[in-house]
Amino acid sequence: MKEIKIRTTPEPTLRRLPRYYHLLLRLKERGINDVSSTVIAKELDLDPTQVRKDIEYTEIIGRPKTGYNISDLIKSIRTFLSWDTNSNAVLVGTGSLGTAMLGYKNFSKYGLNFIAAFDIKKELIGKEIHGVKVYNFNDLKEIIEKDKVTIGVLAVPVEAAQEAADKMIKGGIKAIWNYAPCQLKVDNSILVENAQLSQSLAVLTRKITELYLKESL
Amino acid sequence: MKEIKIRTTPEPTLRRLPRYYHLLLRLKERGINDVSSTVIAKELDLDPTQVRKDIEYTEIIGRPKTGYNISDLIKSIRTFLSWDTNSNAVLVGTGSLGTAMLGYKNFSKYGLNFIAAFDIKKELIGKEIHGVKVYNFNDLKEIIEKDKVTIGVLAVPVEAAQEAADKMIKGGIKAIWNYAPCQLKVDNSILVENAQLSQSLAVLTRKITELYLKESL
Repeated sequence: MKEIKIRTTPEPTLRRLPRYYHLLLRLKERGINDVSSTVIAKELDLDPTQVRKDIEYTEIIGRPKTGYNISDLIKSIRTFLSWDTNSNAVLVGTGSLGTAMLGYKNFSKYGLNFIAAFDIKKELIGKEIHGVKVYNFNDLKEIIEKDKVTIGVLAVPVEAAQEAADKMIKGGIKAIWNYAPCQLKVDNSILVENAQLSQSLAVLTRKITELYLKESL
Repeated sequence: MKEIKIRTTPEPTLRRLPRYYHLLLRLKERGINDVSSTVIAKELDLDPTQVRKDIEYTEIIGRPKTGYNISDLIKSIRTFLSWDTNSNAVLVGTGSLGTAMLGYKNFSKYGLNFIAAFDIKKELIGKEIHGVKVYNFNDLKEIIEKDKVTIGVLAVPVEAAQEAADKMIKGGIKAIWNYAPCQLKVDNSILVENAQLSQSLAVLTRKITELYLKESL
């Protein structure tokens, strides 16, 4: 009997893989064919052992001396992150952030394919934003079921976030990419990834203060 | 002689503080006056000791039994993160993401005040986006110096990111909020916070795969 084991990848590893990926793309553009974990680590200010361990998750093996073939490693990371296959997604909330996400062409490079957007504002329904049609939020379930949508991107105000999430889940969405600055209450079987810009901004604004405090001593 | 000591706040703490902040806002809206670290921890699925330690950085002290006064704690976190004072910022790159950032009204709640946007596309220069004027990127230095700008938000394509960052720094910017999916090479004295959406997406897309793999066993 063969045992099938699925390793759960640690989140820090998942957050570093895109950094390797983007570095590799730039190295490839410069005509470079191979790269070692030491070089990757140096470029990104990380520990080489950490880099090697992270890359091992994608099941590619480095060769002594030459390291990794860059094209192979790019492909391996893309496959590992499911960025080489289209994932149908819907967006809920077509305010300024939602509109930007529909227009952000990089998402399609990561396999994210917006098939519909939803809003409650009647004046928006039926219109197209960056080529994606806006539907009435009440029709969410029907469209999700028809198009086998796995990812729901939530870009509504905080007050509307939990209700919108609940409706997404009822419609069959398994994974929510949450841009509303709040904690969603969902069942354990539902994935929620909070892309909270305010958390990133907090790091920046506090560090500036600490920098000035130190300089003023 | 009094020793002045500035604690450097750990990044994970800085990333959790906005989560407490947004929870507190919602509790306050519901008419609640006090909250304990245990309740905060439970709501956000964190460890109460961790919550207490994080909040200690903001120099507010909880009271036995009742815990924290919510209004005080909100104020304390805002002050600690410098969200209660206006920080002048400029945006470089007015594509779909940059445009959204200029229109994202939540940023002003965090004290981020966009005084100018920059682009190299001639047809955009002189126009206003969400009330912010677009200038020629070559005029960056002059405007930064005049308005004491501390934060530069970088929303240009990868190919243009390093050059744009270099020009920002030459103009006197001390902190860069980088939305380009690449590692910037900057001097140690410059703060860079990478707000890389692809890192967050990577967590989501891989976890979906792992979820399906487990379900299919």
